[in-house]
Amino acid sequence: MTLVVGVDIGGTKTSAGLVDSSGTLLAVRTLPTPAAQGPAAVLDTAVGLVAEVASGTGDVTAVGVGSAGVVDPRRGVIVSATGAITGWAGTDLRGEVSRRLGLPVAVGNDVHAHALGEQWRGAAAGYADVLLVAVGTGIGASVVLGGRVLRGAHSVAGHAGHVPAVAAAGRPCPCGGHGHVEAVASGPAMLAEYRARAAAVATEPPGVSGPPGVAGPPGVTGPAAVSGLADVARLAAQGDRIAVSVLTGGAAALGSTIGGLMNVIDPEVVVVGGGVAACGESWWQALREGIAAEVLPALREVPVGPAALGGDAALLGAARMALEVAG
Amino acid sequence: MTLVVGVDIGGTKTSAGLVDSSGTLLAVRTLPTPAAQGPAAVLDTAVGLVAEVASGTGDVTAVGVGSAGVVDPRRGVIVSATGAITGWAGTDLRGEVSRRLGLPVAVGNDVHAHALGEQWRGAAAGYADVLLVAVGTGIGASVVLGGRVLRGAHSVAGHAGHVPAVAAAGRPCPCGGHGHVEAVASGPAMLAEYRARAAAVATEPPGVSGPPGVAGPPGVTGPAAVSGLADVARLAAQGDRIAVSVLTGGAAALGSTIGGLMNVIDPEVVVVGGGVAACGESWWQALREGIAAEVLPALREVPVGPAALGGDAALLGAARMALEVAG
Repeated sequence: MTLVVGVDIGGTKTSAGLVDSSGTLLAVRTLPTPAAQGPAAVLDTAVGLVAEVASGTGDVTAVGVGSAGVVDPRRGVIVSATGAITGWAGTDLRGEVSRRLGLPVAVGNDVHAHALGEQWRGAAAGYADVLLVAVGTGIGASVVLGGRVLRGAHSVAGHAGHVPAVAAAGRPCPCGGHGHVEAVASGPAMLAEYRARAAAVATEPPGVSGPPGVAGPPGVTGPAAVSGLADVARLAAQGDRIAVSVLTGGAAALGSTIGGLMNVIDPEVVVVGGGVAACGESWWQALREGIAAEVLPALREVPVGPAALGGDAALLGAARMALEVAG
Repeated sequence: MTLVVGVDIGGTKTSAGLVDSSGTLLAVRTLPTPAAQGPAAVLDTAVGLVAEVASGTGDVTAVGVGSAGVVDPRRGVIVSATGAITGWAGTDLRGEVSRRLGLPVAVGNDVHAHALGEQWRGAAAGYADVLLVAVGTGIGASVVLGGRVLRGAHSVAGHAGHVPAVAAAGRPCPCGGHGHVEAVASGPAMLAEYRARAAAVATEPPGVSGPPGVAGPPGVTGPAAVSGLADVARLAAQGDRIAVSVLTGGAAALGSTIGGLMNVIDPEVVVVGGGVAACGESWWQALREGIAAEVLPALREVPVGPAALGGDAALLGAARMALEVAG
């Protein structure tokens, strides 16, 4: 059976997985991405992880690499990237990895890899036309049509975070624009919104409004207790009104965007993954209601559900890219 | 050279065109669509027009039909349709036309045919990945990827009129939903908006505001003089402030929607057609500005321009469908 290695290079960690041609993940190794040290260090880490998971097998025939940023799969190069990895834009990802390993290498965007993984072995298995949305620090999507990822004419297809949203009107977006759904529905956007609203309530004079939450002992709720979106999700699960309002507001905005995109793309299934998708039932309910409010009648029964593979999705998708270039 | 006939069935008129395999339109005939008389009369009209344009040539090998409504090209059936043609939903379009003519028939949605025509011989010729938007009574789009129209899993892909838009928030949409761009940027939406705003100004007491327009003799501007969107466009060209505001508002909303879709689809080129696209320079400028405000940096140079073929686009696109089934 053909063996390949899938690699997922993110801003904080890099993973490599040994995968067989049936999509079984046989071994995984992960290290922090030396993002501040620049491309050479990042590539060395990735190549080292490939060697580790491949050790003891002499049969790895190709490597697939999914990376954050805009990746041109034809030229193999990082076209543009945020500052998460210093100097990453312009890196000849395919050429450098291939040269160091002496193997054929396929490269692509990490959200595209995520979608391919879910479509191969995860929540979208058995579907050919898939809209996968990943919600975390940013919001990205991947459109799979006939089993193939839509990369677009400039390798930027799938930037669903940068679609105008009513709830985001006027808000600055990380892309430099304004009013995009990422500005209101990403993890950092919802965390900042929670902190701002909880702080505003905490500084109101007594008697003007009720307490910020309906549950939890004094001092547990409120901005001081919140170090990340997981804390907001926990507060929402306990009934904290601000936390519920922030999460459902973000989810409703994202659902509205997804519903509009469904009317244009007409997928068989919608899969939603990323860290924010773990925010609990109130987030999911608002997401589904947001979608239902927008979709045309013919699309009301399209299944919408969570991604199934977690972090393994991008590794499996990268491995699937590798299989396309495996000798 | 292979000869085929392309047919365009709309709510008001039906056309047939004799087309050769190079995409040259050799003859066209058009009749009013007997929409109120039901499917059999509509099919008879279409088939009669095919016979007329094909008369004198014994070599027509296939027919392509583009129709309003949701058309399933695999089953050949009208899945759903507005009330424009009585009883049209459920019609076995391919079967009925094929039976009457004894020829292979391909069918598809009229906006999809429009896009195929522009991509074959019009404004998108030479491009493989195209976003075509048609703006008229409704707003539709067609996504062409690798030269093929995206039909979607339920044959409804391309319903770009039903994407949430900030400017449309709360407004009822013809689809039954609310807040979609069609509710603010279609021809009827802009005409109704002009009439409402001009009437409101006309009934204001003197001294509260200025006249409704800056140009034209008394009685020429205002709602009474406006029988269609072309009148609004004419008033805008003359500098009528309400007309300019309504057209640029609709165009900006549509541009915002198109820009967001470009970030997801990443086309090589955007082509905008339909009757509303003839509304003049102020409409186009607002459309381009609306797009520019949304697109990611990598897409700033994507060409955006008008469709080139007018009503011939759908005929040529239908003919192109026919070539795929020509014996």
